[in-house]
Amino acid sequence: MEVKYMSRALALAREGIGYTSPNPLVGAVIVKEGRIIGEGYHQLYGGPHAEINAFENAAEDVYGATMYVTLEPCSHYGKTPPCANAIVEKGIKKVVIAMMDPNPLVAGKGIDILKTNGIEVVTGILEDEAKKTNEIFIKYITTGSPFCLLKTAMTLDGKIAAYTGDSKWITNEKSRGYVHQLRHQYRGIMVGIGTVLADDPMLTTRLDAKEGCDPVRIVVDSRGRIPLNAQVLHVSSQARTVIATTDQIPQEKLIALQQLGAEVILLPSIQGQVSLPDLMKALGERKIDSILLEGGSTLNYTALDAGIVDKVMAFISPKILGGSGAKTPVGGQGKSLVKDAVHLKNISINRFEEDILIEGYVDR
Amino acid sequence: MEVKYMSRALALAREGIGYTSPNPLVGAVIVKEGRIIGEGYHQLYGGPHAEINAFENAAEDVYGATMYVTLEPCSHYGKTPPCANAIVEKGIKKVVIAMMDPNPLVAGKGIDILKTNGIEVVTGILEDEAKKTNEIFIKYITTGSPFCLLKTAMTLDGKIAAYTGDSKWITNEKSRGYVHQLRHQYRGIMVGIGTVLADDPMLTTRLDAKEGCDPVRIVVDSRGRIPLNAQVLHVSSQARTVIATTDQIPQEKLIALQQLGAEVILLPSIQGQVSLPDLMKALGERKIDSILLEGGSTLNYTALDAGIVDKVMAFISPKILGGSGAKTPVGGQGKSLVKDAVHLKNISINRFEEDILIEGYVDR
Repeated sequence: MEVKYMSRALALAREGIGYTSPNPLVGAVIVKEGRIIGEGYHQLYGGPHAEINAFENAAEDVYGATMYVTLEPCSHYGKTPPCANAIVEKGIKKVVIAMMDPNPLVAGKGIDILKTNGIEVVTGILEDEAKKTNEIFIKYITTGSPFCLLKTAMTLDGKIAAYTGDSKWITNEKSRGYVHQLRHQYRGIMVGIGTVLADDPMLTTRLDAKEGCDPVRIVVDSRGRIPLNAQVLHVSSQARTVIATTDQIPQEKLIALQQLGAEVILLPSIQGQVSLPDLMKALGERKIDSILLEGGSTLNYTALDAGIVDKVMAFISPKILGGSGAKTPVGGQGKSLVKDAVHLKNISINRFEEDILIEGYVDR
Repeated sequence: MEVKYMSRALALAREGIGYTSPNPLVGAVIVKEGRIIGEGYHQLYGGPHAEINAFENAAEDVYGATMYVTLEPCSHYGKTPPCANAIVEKGIKKVVIAMMDPNPLVAGKGIDILKTNGIEVVTGILEDEAKKTNEIFIKYITTGSPFCLLKTAMTLDGKIAAYTGDSKWITNEKSRGYVHQLRHQYRGIMVGIGTVLADDPMLTTRLDAKEGCDPVRIVVDSRGRIPLNAQVLHVSSQARTVIATTDQIPQEKLIALQQLGAEVILLPSIQGQVSLPDLMKALGERKIDSILLEGGSTLNYTALDAGIVDKVMAFISPKILGGSGAKTPVGGQGKSLVKDAVHLKNISINRFEEDILIEGYVDR
């Protein structure tokens, strides 16, 4: 039963995807005498927490009930008063928690408040699933750097385009639709200047079912080569565009980009290229907790080599293009030995009709 | 119940993998009053058929019993007398058949004999699975050309080796073990001269559990560049080595290869390269019903482009090598447009620990 209610709470938590950043996804379910009497989730950054929403939605008196919550209730005054206190005041008898607060500064404090007030506390129910649901929040709160997902798409022989450059379409509509869901979920989308020069993309979120949130558009452009008429500088969007560059950018280009409304971040360089670890830190300071890296082949390798990538999603379409001159998803210099390759762990596989999605986490 | 017995018969059929070529894999189960009273399968080319083995192994009188057999019983005198007649003589009451004989010259004749003699016949039980089990036989008997399986192995970013050429090991032990099972199953293994020059492979079958059958080693070597000390020319094996070449081979090289015991097949050329459709025909004439293509990147593209590939097995290891200069599984010129790519259908996915195997059939 505990698993069933926690599973429901996690499903509720995921309803908030795309709207709570940089705060966590949280769901809560209140159960009395075997019946769910209240449900809630964290719907929007700055809005009430899951526990409070569950109380507000409760169909009957919650006194003596059990609460299932996917993350340890908070103990501090932030945008809202602490949830642990509210749980005590409402007379909840037992609290079942999927995972502790990953923030080392506050972890365990919410549970302490509950226990001190005589509430029974159970932890660790569906903990792995809860951690996966909040993988972005966990990375960001513990490091200050955004969680970085590298997304690639290739044929079954490893090509991202034909040797001519033609790439319409490697993957099917379902796969491409899923990528737009990711753009809605992730706070930033990052590409290299090569992609802007070649494809002039908009990097916005296009969802069928609902209005999506656009991610902040981040272009890694070490020498400031972006054309002033690039679509990313002119697209109508609630999210801004960031140009990550170095002191190699001409001063007049920098000013022109700022006049177009872009934010230009000047960063240290490594061998003439933007230092990606420094860029991640700078983006984290701007409250960007997650990056969807849809870089070209060169930026993808630089990012992996720099160790900023946390997760990889590789879409594979069951077709074969051939071509010794066709590009692959990860280029650059490359590792010289197979044993030094970047290894992925916790592999999972999904299907989008005939397309296959392989995902895994970088093993450090 | 019919499905259960036929499933057992198909499992028996697969016991013959590697030993029945170029004849089909067949399994048979005899059922009386809800009990299996006899089982058999085609164990060895030239040996008794599945039905006869099931009769011989029967624990009690088969009169009035039902037989489940994965392929239509034969009606002709080949290496053994027709099974359809034996079934009639034994007094079998009902025969359940997974699939008809794919040979258009004899299809339906076995069933006719059974029906003429008052035996009830049911067909089409687990037909798709039976056809997949005998995909090699079906291709070979209907076209005279071998069934060709292209096997590749790459990283999650599409590389078959690091840019340095290092390739030990892309896939794990389980995956590599499975490839040796394929070598046992397939009658021929084909590589390009590039692979021989680079890796000097033995191309034999190494199985842990049992002694495997070596495949006939086929080297596509249009100009006769194979070194006389190449391992494929000297390996101790019950299977021979075939050099597929054109009239560009120097006469003395041809004679030297023959003196080493290799069979040299002179074939028409297409743009200076061995014509692969002609090679397939020549191999079919030599009773080679199946080819495992472990070619390098160039031969793989030529084979796909020539339309000789029936099935693709792509092993993917969840690691990332990078390298714009690293090789991919299929090279050559390549298709110029994504819409012209070779499409695969009937995709299935298997896991070998962390490795992923994607397989599919070329959609013509």
